[in-house]
Amino acid sequence: MQAVMTPEEVTKLLDAVFPQMHAGGRAYSIDGITDGQAVVRLTATDVHLRPGGTVSGPSMMTLADYAAYVVILAHIGPEALAVTTNLNINFLRKPGPGDLLGSCRLLKLGKRLAVVECGIAGEGEDDLVAHATATYSLPPR
Amino acid sequence: MQAVMTPEEVTKLLDAVFPQMHAGGRAYSIDGITDGQAVVRLTATDVHLRPGGTVSGPSMMTLADYAAYVVILAHIGPEALAVTTNLNINFLRKPGPGDLLGSCRLLKLGKRLAVVECGIAGEGEDDLVAHATATYSLPPR
Amino acid sequence: MQAVMTPEEVTKLLDAVFPQMHAGGRAYSIDGITDGQAVVRLTATDVHLRPGGTVSGPSMMTLADYAAYVVILAHIGPEALAVTTNLNINFLRKPGPGDLLGSCRLLKLGKRLAVVECGIAGEGEDDLVAHATATYSLPPR
Amino acid sequence: MQAVMTPEEVTKLLDAVFPQMHAGGRAYSIDGITDGQAVVRLTATDVHLRPGGTVSGPSMMTLADYAAYVVILAHIGPEALAVTTNLNINFLRKPGPGDLLGSCRLLKLGKRLAVVECGIAGEGEDDLVAHATATYSLPPR
Repeated sequence: MQAVMTPEEVTKLLDAVFPQMHAGGRAYSIDGITDGQAVVRLTATDVHLRPGGTVSGPSMMTLADYAAYVVILAHIGPEALAVTTNLNINFLRKPGPGDLLGSCRLLKLGKRLAVVECGIAGEGEDDLVAHATATYSLPPR
Repeated sequence: MQAVMTPEEVTKLLDAVFPQMHAGGRAYSIDGITDGQAVVRLTATDVHLRPGGTVSGPSMMTLADYAAYVVILAHIGPEALAVTTNLNINFLRKPGPGDLLGSCRLLKLGKRLAVVECGIAGEGEDDLVAHATATYSLPPR
Repeated sequence: MQAVMTPEEVTKLLDAVFPQMHAGGRAYSIDGITDGQAVVRLTATDVHLRPGGTVSGPSMMTLADYAAYVVILAHIGPEALAVTTNLNINFLRKPGPGDLLGSCRLLKLGKRLAVVECGIAGEGEDDLVAHATATYSLPPR
Repeated sequence: MQAVMTPEEVTKLLDAVFPQMHAGGRAYSIDGITDGQAVVRLTATDVHLRPGGTVSGPSMMTLADYAAYVVILAHIGPEALAVTTNLNINFLRKPGPGDLLGSCRLLKLGKRLAVVECGIAGEGEDDLVAHATATYSLPPR
């Protein structure tokens, strides 16, 4: 599978279709896109944190969904937009302070469905704080 | 399974542990709690919407997670707090305008784990827009 | 959603496409089909049991998948066959002795995807032993 | 995470607790166990196949569950037995002829819960035919 869009192109497209991602400040950014893979960063602001400074579960679910979109769009191009049909997430460990990185890889990019796997870890950490898989319906292209 | 907290008591507790839920305005509220069940309402503000006015996928995931918390806390009481370990959600139909209701029921309330099922539909609608099941780890009580 | 096949018609079709279901003896049977719903029974034989006589996890996963097929086929008719794309199952309680019933309802029957919810309980029991949701890809029809 | 049992020791233990795995012939075998990982092989017999010779969905679900057990037991030792609480599987591609390998890694091995990720592919193939994550409850140890 070959990437056909750059991080800048994907960011511009997603800013238009998901403007609410940046409520509270621009927290999600694309660290990189390679063939079959993408890494998305969450730099948490107050709206993403629980008391004590831990990134909330919903923020991690949002990171997984957004990161999966990034890797799909980067490989199908800007003409079509995927729709999430299923997301399954396991929360493994309490996140520490600092940025979280969602590292996604495309398990399948078919005619009608794409499936993505996403591991979420603190920057520089090996142990995952969460792991998700998700399926997206793709319009005809 | 018998409810041991009122909507007012659960709301007060969750306001303290999930203050970020109300970023952008108080959008989530408890419609009702009965034995084994709870209904939570999402009155979307701008931060919950995609262009065109549709409630976003992450907002529905947040509604499912929050509603599951409500039904669990309402049945175990305020001394302990559950931690989400797994959430699986299927997005079924595009939501229309108007409030969304997350109707949860406890499938299991064990010593160490609780499992909740949550159907999300537009107010007054029969067809679900999303359906989730989730598992929570319970501290000793 | 309206059923368009009888239990006998569905049984005949599934016997042809899933003959391996009956290895060890005819254990799965259709208890009933109504609009939007179906109930499938598992009468366990030795191959379905763990030591001690409990129905095994894989047998319950198979019951959920087979029961979902029954309810989908019953509503789309015999010309097309669905393919499982995702199955998520929560095991809630240890099953007791006796038959298990998988009660499925169609959450969505779209052009390309069907989503089914399935509760598994011992016959005559209220508490579920397992709960599953699953998604199936539908060929054009 | 360090493995504490050999493939032979795990095989002997699981033969005692899951004798029904070998109905139709000894089809599941452990290819190898390393720190944090295990590979389990399915050499399909008639009971695992659909007409046309494709391994059935339920057989792949069983492979994922069994492989996850192998990697968990190999790391916690023989005194305790895990119980599956959740399994989520995505079917990605139709399997070809030949053996399937389930390659599992431990995402988390906690006091009360273990989470495993399992990729299933044809022997010698890169593309996965299925991908699963599963959670197991661990008795006190």
